[in-house]
Amino acid sequence: MHIALFQGTPRPLDVPGNLQRLRQQARLAAEQGAGLLVCPEMFLTGYNIGAAQVQRLAETEDGPSAMRVVEIAQAYRIAIAYGYPERGDDGAVYNSVQLVDAQGRSLSNYRKTHLFGELDRAMFSQGPDHFPVVELNGWKVGLLICYDIEFPENARRLALSGAELILVPTANMAPYDFTCQVTVRARAQENQCYLVYANYCGSEGDIHYCGQSSIVAPDGSLLAMAGHDECLLTAQLEYDRLIQGREAFPYLRDLRQELHRRHA
Amino acid sequence: MHIALFQGTPRPLDVPGNLQRLRQQARLAAEQGAGLLVCPEMFLTGYNIGAAQVQRLAETEDGPSAMRVVEIAQAYRIAIAYGYPERGDDGAVYNSVQLVDAQGRSLSNYRKTHLFGELDRAMFSQGPDHFPVVELNGWKVGLLICYDIEFPENARRLALSGAELILVPTANMAPYDFTCQVTVRARAQENQCYLVYANYCGSEGDIHYCGQSSIVAPDGSLLAMAGHDECLLTAQLEYDRLIQGREAFPYLRDLRQELHRRHA
Repeated sequence: MHIALFQGTPRPLDVPGNLQRLRQQARLAAEQGAGLLVCPEMFLTGYNIGAAQVQRLAETEDGPSAMRVVEIAQAYRIAIAYGYPERGDDGAVYNSVQLVDAQGRSLSNYRKTHLFGELDRAMFSQGPDHFPVVELNGWKVGLLICYDIEFPENARRLALSGAELILVPTANMAPYDFTCQVTVRARAQENQCYLVYANYCGSEGDIHYCGQSSIVAPDGSLLAMAGHDECLLTAQLEYDRLIQGREAFPYLRDLRQELHRRHA
Repeated sequence: MHIALFQGTPRPLDVPGNLQRLRQQARLAAEQGAGLLVCPEMFLTGYNIGAAQVQRLAETEDGPSAMRVVEIAQAYRIAIAYGYPERGDDGAVYNSVQLVDAQGRSLSNYRKTHLFGELDRAMFSQGPDHFPVVELNGWKVGLLICYDIEFPENARRLALSGAELILVPTANMAPYDFTCQVTVRARAQENQCYLVYANYCGSEGDIHYCGQSSIVAPDGSLLAMAGHDECLLTAQLEYDRLIQGREAFPYLRDLRQELHRRHA
């Protein structure tokens, strides 16, 4: 499967503009043969928009903006993973990512479980114990969001549930470059999964995003890595490479889960 | 606390020679003000020596070689962490690391829990569910061995048990440089612990060790890193840096353990 990742500057509060940009990027990605496009955290609204705007802009997972994303996916025959503020049935607002396939079907929706500091906590409720792994074009795909990937438990949970590809929309800012440069590579390698880390660049209020989005192979090598500018990264995922990696690095088989179960 | 790490070529089967070398390095480290010296995995006997030699050279944790290490620690007033093949009370042989303080007291003994491939499994029994964290010079110290550090669960177990400093004697070989270059930094940072990764350099049979031993700070930065030659690395651990790091990166506080307990 060929995949694409969009790293862009946030356009806060401009949902129609962000949907238009998503359409442009989906078209570009599809023209390059990508079967999946991954966008940053809270892409539809911007991330650093405050609790009042999050409350105002939150939609259900099948709300009007989701329907627009479905149209885009269908129009360009490309799967899309995108972040948005989700209004739950319980009335709470979650920091969510939805994965829609090329036929416009919602495959999964994940609510960020590990909220980042006061910034996240002021805007969102924390997600429940729901870490879906679904099949897309023959690949088992899991979702995490930003701070989630900094905890090894979250990616491991997905890998032990069968994930082969982990998509991580993010809004990672200075001075947290370490996550872009080291952590994402370790997560891919220790789980022998492909990993897509889709970040913003530029600024949003007093936040300076650190770019450096990446597509990482199961051996931890960087298939593609952005700098600090807007760009569309692409890479080819190869199932043979995944299988060979898991033979050479049998972490998932060698892990003695029974040792840590009581202590986890 | 000032600490030292010895990276050297293995001298297989030469226990007296390795004890002599340990004495030299302990003297050098103490002269440089170190309060702790960390040596590679299976340092007393060499690592790639085969099952028959491991059976022949294995000693109890208070055997004659351990008593020599105690004398060295006392002579130079320096704590020592060293690897050796341990004969257990159960008759089995373990791949173990012992930590002896500057007064010659054994503070802890850890048996490698995650054995590496056929190489390890041919020589050793796997260690039990025992991950000691002990206090040394005011620092809470945990032990892991080589392949153990490649599983995030092991270092996390120690950090959640209070570890602030994780010592990892290793015998890491080509082509596994990724662990030296990326994994150890991720482990230190995600747990906000200091980490000491003490490897061999040179060759032993058909194994080519990859050197690149390191002392890593809680923010994942390299305080010292070896190349491929024999050397004594030193670094200063600062408790303030640990505390400040844990304020800035509250992973241990933010981790939602309840999410993964049933799935770990």
